[in-house]
Amino acid sequence: MADQHNEPDYGRLIVQGPDRPGIVASVSSVLAEHGANIVSLDQASSDPPGGRFFQRTVFHLPDLAGRLDELNEALSATLGARLGLDFRLVEAHRRKRVAIFVSKADHCLLDLLWRQRRGEIPMTVPMVVSNHPDLRDQVRQFDIPYFHVPVSKQDKAAAEKEQLNLVKGNVDLLVFARYMQIVSGDFLSEVGVPIINIHHSFLPAFTGANPYQQARDRGVKLVGATAHYVTEDLDAGPIIEQDVIRVSHRDSVRDLQRKGADVERLVLSRAVAWHCDDRVLRDGNTTVVF
Amino acid sequence: MADQHNEPDYGRLIVQGPDRPGIVASVSSVLAEHGANIVSLDQASSDPPGGRFFQRTVFHLPDLAGRLDELNEALSATLGARLGLDFRLVEAHRRKRVAIFVSKADHCLLDLLWRQRRGEIPMTVPMVVSNHPDLRDQVRQFDIPYFHVPVSKQDKAAAEKEQLNLVKGNVDLLVFARYMQIVSGDFLSEVGVPIINIHHSFLPAFTGANPYQQARDRGVKLVGATAHYVTEDLDAGPIIEQDVIRVSHRDSVRDLQRKGADVERLVLSRAVAWHCDDRVLRDGNTTVVF
Amino acid sequence: MADQHNEPDYGRLIVQGPDRPGIVASVSSVLAEHGANIVSLDQASSDPPGGRFFQRTVFHLPDLAGRLDELNEALSATLGARLGLDFRLVEAHRRKRVAIFVSKADHCLLDLLWRQRRGEIPMTVPMVVSNHPDLRDQVRQFDIPYFHVPVSKQDKAAAEKEQLNLVKGNVDLLVFARYMQIVSGDFLSEVGVPIINIHHSFLPAFTGANPYQQARDRGVKLVGATAHYVTEDLDAGPIIEQDVIRVSHRDSVRDLQRKGADVERLVLSRAVAWHCDDRVLRDGNTTVVF
Amino acid sequence: MADQHNEPDYGRLIVQGPDRPGIVASVSSVLAEHGANIVSLDQASSDPPGGRFFQRTVFHLPDLAGRLDELNEALSATLGARLGLDFRLVEAHRRKRVAIFVSKADHCLLDLLWRQRRGEIPMTVPMVVSNHPDLRDQVRQFDIPYFHVPVSKQDKAAAEKEQLNLVKGNVDLLVFARYMQIVSGDFLSEVGVPIINIHHSFLPAFTGANPYQQARDRGVKLVGATAHYVTEDLDAGPIIEQDVIRVSHRDSVRDLQRKGADVERLVLSRAVAWHCDDRVLRDGNTTVVF
Repeated sequence: MADQHNEPDYGRLIVQGPDRPGIVASVSSVLAEHGANIVSLDQASSDPPGGRFFQRTVFHLPDLAGRLDELNEALSATLGARLGLDFRLVEAHRRKRVAIFVSKADHCLLDLLWRQRRGEIPMTVPMVVSNHPDLRDQVRQFDIPYFHVPVSKQDKAAAEKEQLNLVKGNVDLLVFARYMQIVSGDFLSEVGVPIINIHHSFLPAFTGANPYQQARDRGVKLVGATAHYVTEDLDAGPIIEQDVIRVSHRDSVRDLQRKGADVERLVLSRAVAWHCDDRVLRDGNTTVVF
Repeated sequence: MADQHNEPDYGRLIVQGPDRPGIVASVSSVLAEHGANIVSLDQASSDPPGGRFFQRTVFHLPDLAGRLDELNEALSATLGARLGLDFRLVEAHRRKRVAIFVSKADHCLLDLLWRQRRGEIPMTVPMVVSNHPDLRDQVRQFDIPYFHVPVSKQDKAAAEKEQLNLVKGNVDLLVFARYMQIVSGDFLSEVGVPIINIHHSFLPAFTGANPYQQARDRGVKLVGATAHYVTEDLDAGPIIEQDVIRVSHRDSVRDLQRKGADVERLVLSRAVAWHCDDRVLRDGNTTVVF
Repeated sequence: MADQHNEPDYGRLIVQGPDRPGIVASVSSVLAEHGANIVSLDQASSDPPGGRFFQRTVFHLPDLAGRLDELNEALSATLGARLGLDFRLVEAHRRKRVAIFVSKADHCLLDLLWRQRRGEIPMTVPMVVSNHPDLRDQVRQFDIPYFHVPVSKQDKAAAEKEQLNLVKGNVDLLVFARYMQIVSGDFLSEVGVPIINIHHSFLPAFTGANPYQQARDRGVKLVGATAHYVTEDLDAGPIIEQDVIRVSHRDSVRDLQRKGADVERLVLSRAVAWHCDDRVLRDGNTTVVF
Repeated sequence: MADQHNEPDYGRLIVQGPDRPGIVASVSSVLAEHGANIVSLDQASSDPPGGRFFQRTVFHLPDLAGRLDELNEALSATLGARLGLDFRLVEAHRRKRVAIFVSKADHCLLDLLWRQRRGEIPMTVPMVVSNHPDLRDQVRQFDIPYFHVPVSKQDKAAAEKEQLNLVKGNVDLLVFARYMQIVSGDFLSEVGVPIINIHHSFLPAFTGANPYQQARDRGVKLVGATAHYVTEDLDAGPIIEQDVIRVSHRDSVRDLQRKGADVERLVLSRAVAWHCDDRVLRDGNTTVVF
């Protein structure tokens, strides 16, 4: 799932902003002038013309680390000042630091940790945070710290404060791997990094609680899962990835949960891997995934 | 898609009602006593015990046509009177008569007609009814009558009356193959046969108008289609079949419409074939599909 | 994935043999006479008439354990002696004992163990056997014995003898979860229980070694996995389950391996769960999966 | 399925050849120098470095038709002479001329003609050629000439000569839409345009005749279809697109044919649309599909 150019001297340049003629040529000129060789390039425009432009470029540049400032400056002059674009330049070998939040269900968590160990997701996991103690031993077998932060309705703010103390500055991404708590708007604005959540339905169908029970009651023939960025509007953030699995009248709610769990873990792991690879660009309330 | 036992002397027995011990044995005993040989049997119970029971049995019985009354009586005594079950006995070779309602889009209509011509759907199509003249020539090339019944907001009742005159008594099923009109509750209660509709989204996501525009705005990664029985509650009737196809940020609304059209026609054709094969049993607002 | 009737007093009756009129009625009569209530029934016939018949019936019978002998006798008289059918009667709550054979890859193994721990596969795992020591710690964290039996080309027979000592009488099923060794015909005939293998391609495409390299060389647009019973004829045994995943020119052989691994573990886990639920019936070199 | 920039003044530039640093920058520079604005760009490299490079660029250039020669010359100097690359420059609004070859089955043919009429495939169809008369009326209803060229074992060469007379110079592509004849090597070298064939299996499984019977005999759980370029080596040409559909023990060979037909028509239509959009680049015996 992850990019294949994660060694030193490989860089990624993410560009987005108002579309106009000549952006692709400008980006490749700046890179060429600095001796960078484009290894892969993905580009998209939201129609109609006058829409928004998105580009992800992977390039190779000897001594990239030493030349980042110079390259940043040149890009800033061309892309920023002249073309009014936002851009982000990262060294491909720097792994995102990810805190995983869980409750009691283990399937999404284990899939993430297992893929991280196999090298399938370019991230480090400095901590797992949970409102329950149940998964402690399983997490620590991966040599990852497990922090138990109980959340009760009365002291939710206190719990969030404790969580913020744990994660702020220490991680680049939060992943809610079936974390069964709603976080406050304050938490979202304080935390300062993106949060990816897995919702156990094919959004926008079945928002809120017990989506599998809702799916059974409605008699749908497929159940699904949705990985999305968390925003203040519950279950309404930008969608990164979705998938579904076929079900039938033979399946009880528990069967739906089991079949759905296989989709949840796959969808969440894909979304996290893509995010860590800088493949996901936000476009309003939607995403471009290269 | 269709059943393989559509010759004379093959029958189908559909049983449903309150679950209780011994139904399977009772059904097979009655059939055995009359010399019928069970060719296939599907059965389901809605949990928990005390739920509802569903069974579809295909059997072979020499001179079935001549012995239908006798068999109906025996089933009525055993299944109806003693076990409180509803049942329905049909000769497998009798094709359902289907009226197809369309507007301007041809993809679902043509798929149904192609399959009917190839023998993939065990139905006859005595008429196509449309509120537009556009598809007339295409339909008549299949030697099927095409009736143009314009529908205007003012005289909707008149149009429905004309439609009822055309279909009542002449067909066993109505199929709305992208028929872009909402029919009244009066029409539904008058028409006396089931109606299958294709909705161009994965219900319950994106009910109402312009589901592909809604899907694009929400940024979903799959679009789908849903075939369901029509009830008074718009887009909320029992679902027969659903499927989805993957889309991405590269797809415009028009692309979603094109990709979705491939799913719509497949989902609708499957649902109609299954219905015509007596494979779809209604269970409240859901379906059992054998 | 597993059946929902795994409590005491639930039984499963598997029947197969030459098709002839009246089998369904005979089975349900015998069960009814003994007070058993049919909970679910699946049945299939291989066309044309004169083909083979398959049935799986789940029933509830108070004091099933105490009445097994009596029921077996009655079934033997009716199904065996009179109708020439094979049958098998099992108590649903008795879990299959499964030995898992692995080499170095962990994905299929861990998926099986995770699902077993969650109660998704009705099996016990009394041992994992491997020709390598690599996965020892991971297995023992599940409190499952790990036996390392090295296999060298020279002493393959000795290794197989040691493996037979470990498994014979102790297990009901062997699962080769990416066990990268070919076993001898002697082993197969000695072991006396079925073996399920996962092959990392969509059989019959790409038999033999390095199927992902073969897939890359051939330029296929999907890669897959196949779970099948092991027979003397390598990669040619009866197929239980298959699935595929989409790939493209962007995927290296290593990408194919990673994407394929997700399919492998899912396909193998499904096949093992179905086998343990007595849902898989062999029909020559194919299977009926209820 | 088709590209959205098919109006005049849109061009497509296809580049392929040995990979080396700077190709993307060179292409975009030449285009920028001539005032062309890149609308979309897809690019791929076959690893490892020193492999092959592929790029498809869509651009807008006022008065493209009048400036083709000039642009061709500039590209020839830079890409051809200096970088040793092959390139192809086409006006996006010029539709490929496609001859469809069929035998008796109508599903692939009708799907292609219907999509062409809807504007989903950017092609014109100047003729349908068949060794049988069966589909004549259906084709002519689309206002397309139908040529019946019988093929018998004795006069195969004569038939091929007649076919060559019909198509040579008149078309840019041949599509074998379930054309059940093997063509000679002479025909392939004479015809001078690519040929796309649909094989009714998931290649390389089940080459040769009766793949659905082979699939049934082997007991596979999925059947598929493969669209590929025709080469002298039967069923072994570069694969453009594949897909599969789930089947079970309940499906007869005829069921497999019906389910497979839905996959065949979809896979072939996709492949033809992509080819007509210049999205398919051959890489040895595989393809890059942008």
